[in-house]
Amino acid sequence: MHDLIVVGGGPAGLVATVYAVRQRLNVLLISEQLGGKTEVRSEFPGIGDARVIRAQQLVDNFKNELSYLDIAHRLERVRSIAVGDSGASGGGFVAATDGGENLETRSVLITSGCSSRPPRLPGADKYLLKGIGYSAVSYAHLFLDCKAVVIGSGPRAAGSALQLAHSAAQVYLIAEQGEFTESDRALHDAAGLTKLENVTILHDCRITGFDGDTYAREILVEAPGGEHRRIAADGFFLESEAQPNSEVAGGLVDRDGDGFIVVDARCNTSRTGVFAAGDVTNVHREQVLVAMGEGAKAALSVQEYLLASSSGSS
Amino acid sequence: MHDLIVVGGGPAGLVATVYAVRQRLNVLLISEQLGGKTEVRSEFPGIGDARVIRAQQLVDNFKNELSYLDIAHRLERVRSIAVGDSGASGGGFVAATDGGENLETRSVLITSGCSSRPPRLPGADKYLLKGIGYSAVSYAHLFLDCKAVVIGSGPRAAGSALQLAHSAAQVYLIAEQGEFTESDRALHDAAGLTKLENVTILHDCRITGFDGDTYAREILVEAPGGEHRRIAADGFFLESEAQPNSEVAGGLVDRDGDGFIVVDARCNTSRTGVFAAGDVTNVHREQVLVAMGEGAKAALSVQEYLLASSSGSS
Repeated sequence: MHDLIVVGGGPAGLVATVYAVRQRLNVLLISEQLGGKTEVRSEFPGIGDARVIRAQQLVDNFKNELSYLDIAHRLERVRSIAVGDSGASGGGFVAATDGGENLETRSVLITSGCSSRPPRLPGADKYLLKGIGYSAVSYAHLFLDCKAVVIGSGPRAAGSALQLAHSAAQVYLIAEQGEFTESDRALHDAAGLTKLENVTILHDCRITGFDGDTYAREILVEAPGGEHRRIAADGFFLESEAQPNSEVAGGLVDRDGDGFIVVDARCNTSRTGVFAAGDVTNVHREQVLVAMGEGAKAALSVQEYLLASSSGSS
Repeated sequence: MHDLIVVGGGPAGLVATVYAVRQRLNVLLISEQLGGKTEVRSEFPGIGDARVIRAQQLVDNFKNELSYLDIAHRLERVRSIAVGDSGASGGGFVAATDGGENLETRSVLITSGCSSRPPRLPGADKYLLKGIGYSAVSYAHLFLDCKAVVIGSGPRAAGSALQLAHSAAQVYLIAEQGEFTESDRALHDAAGLTKLENVTILHDCRITGFDGDTYAREILVEAPGGEHRRIAADGFFLESEAQPNSEVAGGLVDRDGDGFIVVDARCNTSRTGVFAAGDVTNVHREQVLVAMGEGAKAALSVQEYLLASSSGSS
């Protein structure tokens, strides 16, 4: 029986696993890949990033540490987690993998992250991560005096436009045909977006393509009246709402209305012995520093739990 | 009026302030020093640390970023924080400094950390941070096959001894005269310390000195019966309970029984508009990664709060 199975190999899972190894726990990380979203990095032409503080190096250190300790991880997917036969309290859990194995463990940490599934736009594939990115939050402060385009609707797109508006000279927020709703209108009003002089909101557009060189430089838009426009910018962001990868926790722990696992300040879920950390939880998402901190916290909480549930034997 | 005043310049406060600057908030960090406990680093003879993952570099990056933005911080102490004249909800807060100023702000983030006040032991001053350290938690996994001495009583000393026992060949846990209580005995039993073959518990001792070269190498102990012993080790840890620097929050927000500020998973305190992060709160302490993650989270929560309380104007 393992002391701990960690489900997911992004920053939270990596940090938690290395902490658990240091605590001499019998830990196993199961994930199809290591590094999570930090493996994806967008570049934008003319956006200087000399003064950007990157936590990437630190994530890589944890990843390397884990690769070195190859007994502690498996590149596979966990299909489900069930309460062990011996009952809910202290009886442990069983993680079933896609490979058909049933692995027993005293505790579980879910760090399976979130995904966003941006729309496939014509001509966008060519420039993905080259002028076209997925999340403005990490880049917004770099767009000083630049132009940016946000494509999407809902709170995430509105938040990105607002962040960019703090720095950028001009921000276009473009919603595709049928995507812009009354709740978007209300949201834009409440956030003050509609009052900002450097923000232009275009809705019910048809996006017909992108143009550029090594990087995307222009987006081609057909406005509701049929007018064709080319909008040049230094960065284009496809913003769709993040979806938690929390199916594995279904029925096991409480999730919020959007499916994110509810945790307290110490990464406890609603079920004793099951912990969660990072982008799959109801904390602020897509910040590497936050995910790493949550992972470290979760490992310390797991250690406390194991100690209390067995008076130190393992 | 400031958007945010951050009280305390350790990892949590530094990260939060830089995040707030990026969000174009009118933020002021007030702290007597920058870097917090990360400025203190112990060395131990013969303890290789080539494979240690250090978050120190990242903390330094944030510190440098802030020094560069010198308008955003003041090296001073906040004496108290009061609710602004305009009432508790949305009326803001007033931070009174030792210099006699009263600074108005829409929100407050408390990141004032914790302190431990280890006993002054004869002969220890000479070797502080050179073989004698304050916190075994960050170093325990390095003591593989080494000898370590923990001096102290209470949960913190017991926890350190237990961590060290996972790696070290031999651990001595030494409590001074009159310090060892019945609750220590119960704690040691519950944690399984008394059953570990590589742990020796000595209590009611008188510590008479340390001996060494560049580093402390031996501790001189007088046992209850009057016997004098010299115990050689690779590291000596003075472990006393951490005390939260939370006086500044007195009467403003809820604290737990030990005085740590109670926060939820998003760094909210019991009072709207007041946030807390890092070692001053009821999360796991003295882990740089945790403190940095909490600081980032707190800044994002502050931003959400300010946006909601003013519909975007500032």
